[in-house]
Amino acid sequence: MAVLYEKVALIGLGLIAGSLAHAIRRGGLANTISGYARSAETREIAREISLCDDVCDNVADTVKDADLVILCVPVGVMGVVAEEMKPHLKRGAIVSDVGSVKAAVIASVAPHIPEDVHFIPAHPLAGTEHSGPHSGFAELFDDRWCILVPVENTNTDVLTQYVNFWKAVGSNVEIMDAEHHDLTLAVTSHVPHLIAYTMVGVADDLGRVTDKEVINFSAAGFRDFTRIAASDPTMWRDVFLNNKEATLDILGRFTEELFDLQKAIRGGDGDYLHKYFTRTRAIRRDILDAGQDTDVPNFGRNLTKES
Amino acid sequence: MAVLYEKVALIGLGLIAGSLAHAIRRGGLANTISGYARSAETREIAREISLCDDVCDNVADTVKDADLVILCVPVGVMGVVAEEMKPHLKRGAIVSDVGSVKAAVIASVAPHIPEDVHFIPAHPLAGTEHSGPHSGFAELFDDRWCILVPVENTNTDVLTQYVNFWKAVGSNVEIMDAEHHDLTLAVTSHVPHLIAYTMVGVADDLGRVTDKEVINFSAAGFRDFTRIAASDPTMWRDVFLNNKEATLDILGRFTEELFDLQKAIRGGDGDYLHKYFTRTRAIRRDILDAGQDTDVPNFGRNLTKES
Repeated sequence: MAVLYEKVALIGLGLIAGSLAHAIRRGGLANTISGYARSAETREIAREISLCDDVCDNVADTVKDADLVILCVPVGVMGVVAEEMKPHLKRGAIVSDVGSVKAAVIASVAPHIPEDVHFIPAHPLAGTEHSGPHSGFAELFDDRWCILVPVENTNTDVLTQYVNFWKAVGSNVEIMDAEHHDLTLAVTSHVPHLIAYTMVGVADDLGRVTDKEVINFSAAGFRDFTRIAASDPTMWRDVFLNNKEATLDILGRFTEELFDLQKAIRGGDGDYLHKYFTRTRAIRRDILDAGQDTDVPNFGRNLTKES
Repeated sequence: MAVLYEKVALIGLGLIAGSLAHAIRRGGLANTISGYARSAETREIAREISLCDDVCDNVADTVKDADLVILCVPVGVMGVVAEEMKPHLKRGAIVSDVGSVKAAVIASVAPHIPEDVHFIPAHPLAGTEHSGPHSGFAELFDDRWCILVPVENTNTDVLTQYVNFWKAVGSNVEIMDAEHHDLTLAVTSHVPHLIAYTMVGVADDLGRVTDKEVINFSAAGFRDFTRIAASDPTMWRDVFLNNKEATLDILGRFTEELFDLQKAIRGGDGDYLHKYFTRTRAIRRDILDAGQDTDVPNFGRNLTKES
């Protein structure tokens, strides 16, 4: 592949930035990768493992001469970081981000984007339960989707090149507006995370069932929730505070459905339950067909499986 | 390993019975395995893949001369099957089951157990989202837990031998009473499944987000719910109808917690959210330490991961 940007700057050096660094190198997409993290300890680790060509001690040096700057920090601090880097951005550069909500990021970042800089918000739908500079790997984005949410009057050539960048790190690319993004993600990500956190919290609370039992017997379903509920607390706090409306909307629908199922259980309505549980199987099949999950039982946890 | 039972009979030939057949053969734990399924199609498949030594066309032949009979059918039909096999059981045999609820199974099966037959209810905490005679594999129970729920006055020697059987198919064994089992499983399995079914149902309903989007963007969290919600509808209908009290109890606590988190989101209480999300991480760590899940990111879905 060809070099798409002479210098790429990554602000924040966690799972997504680290995976981007690996994927950019895998594809030979940039000549230089600079990086910055607020924590001195994170910068030190990044230097030790040579995560970037240049780990800088401040935002100004990191974005200097960069053709593409990607904000990989929690949604709640993107505005502050954007304000800080504003005077140091190269004319004609692209500023992007990887935040899980888009309307709030646009509201906080766009005011700090200079006239001669392009702003193209992005959201790669990829992640694991791990975080920190060690956690990244080049394949994270392979066959996953990245949603781009261009603001008004985005230059078409610049956008096309940036689409190609995400394709080159392995993603499929979809373009949509911020409001639709935030609602869609509330369904496919934000509310599922909130529910998982809640269920793990309930189990943690329960005096009548010992901790050890919850742990030992987790393979019966609960453990899949704990993986989701082990995700970065700061990132998720910011997601919920910044996608409040859509989250509360979907949460309301969830509660209504749950009450209907609860009523069916209380009333012994087996037909209702069976019909409901049958309907949800089809969605699983579609996800497998779309290549967004593996059909190996237990997600391949049984590595010695024969058949 | 040594032969523990001359003949083992498996009633119902789905994931659990199939995996038991493989694990019994792996360990050389029986000289003969007989099997029966109500569906002629299932029996035909079981014969084709030689799942058992002897696939019978009725319950009577299946349990004849068997030293151990394990009911691997949905919880809702266990009583009927027990009644049917009653006249054909060998004196001194053990009858067991693998149902996900225990108090209801004991209530429906125990009345049909002859005086000279031992009844030892069991629940192996192992499963995948797949079902049917093809889905079994020998390693399903390895390092998973099996809970035994002996009824009053169970013969100690017989119980010890049956504990050894489950250890020989790969499980750790825990003994508890039926009520405690049903509450513990409501937390670690039944309510998580109900919530997953509900979330998938909500996504399926949502007109404003297209099906294709829900599918494509599922990697952001939702897909882990769809795996759980792809489990066998009949089995799960019976679980909820037969563990009604504990399910509704835990569901009530879940709803309360969820409303607290909802209120925190609505009110913008970031500290509450952050504190909650931090607490739930510890449980994940304990599950990994207990060997009940893998630490590989994404459950090892990224099979090409470098680090």
